[in-house]
Amino acid sequence: MLQIYTGNGKGKTTAAIGLAIRHLGHNKKVCLIQFMKKNFKYGEIVFLNKIKNVDVFQFGTPEFVNKRNPKPIDFKEAEKGLKKAKEVLKSKKYDLIILDELNVALDFNLLELSKVLSLLDDIKNEEVVITGRYAHPELVAKADLVTEMREVKHYYKKG
Amino acid sequence: MLQIYTGNGKGKTTAAIGLAIRHLGHNKKVCLIQFMKKNFKYGEIVFLNKIKNVDVFQFGTPEFVNKRNPKPIDFKEAEKGLKKAKEVLKSKKYDLIILDELNVALDFNLLELSKVLSLLDDIKNEEVVITGRYAHPELVAKADLVTEMREVKHYYKKG
Repeated sequence: MLQIYTGNGKGKTTAAIGLAIRHLGHNKKVCLIQFMKKNFKYGEIVFLNKIKNVDVFQFGTPEFVNKRNPKPIDFKEAEKGLKKAKEVLKSKKYDLIILDELNVALDFNLLELSKVLSLLDDIKNEEVVITGRYAHPELVAKADLVTEMREVKHYYKKG
Repeated sequence: MLQIYTGNGKGKTTAAIGLAIRHLGHNKKVCLIQFMKKNFKYGEIVFLNKIKNVDVFQFGTPEFVNKRNPKPIDFKEAEKGLKKAKEVLKSKKYDLIILDELNVALDFNLLELSKVLSLLDDIKNEEVVITGRYAHPELVAKADLVTEMREVKHYYKKG
């Protein structure tokens, strides 16, 4: 089962985290792999690192990736993330595997589409969730469920 | 700050739960009030009930509400939920207050719009999140951030 959260709105990663909590409440095992994010100050990561039955792996650097000119390390980290995802899927240890911001890593061309599609061919009974803007049409075609988070209104209060 | 997750797609409640986890990771206090839901088997509720810094209150019955013909208890429970929300907001004990499915309780006319709007007038520094389909336009008007979860693709696998 492959699920995608995409769109320009809020709530893609948080919905995946909420799904993780739902699974953990049912004593299931969860793996969260984050692409293009290496910042241990995210509240959800601090929290999940203290919880059993969930493993978190982050790939990327603490800096934003320049879409027009990514650094070699950006490619390398994305590749490492994909390799870890492959391992994790093959291990059969997890009921839910979240590939956070994988859509963005693909959109930034940090990863080859064919390699990502081949990873997804390995999905059996586990639930895999991919998040991030700009989901690739071929990923959408492969998914069982695709939800677009659409920003309807955004108002920053003054002061 | 008032945030709304609405739309026909998945991820509204889970995004709110993920936001709760983010806040808990920052040692903030969270209150989750659920309308039209009284079913302690939800994984996220089982999980959150074991965690400190978060209080969960559920209102409703274990049965679905009949939109065309709600029972007196459906109105009574929704009213109790709104009263609890008022108390919780006044208590100033929480940084994040989630009013889960409040949109649906309003859409089912279990609550008076004016009472809900008056509740929202009490929001000061806390973050309030309202979830559920069919967000009322007057709530949308009051919100700082509105995200629509839109179902793009839903495919139930055979077998």
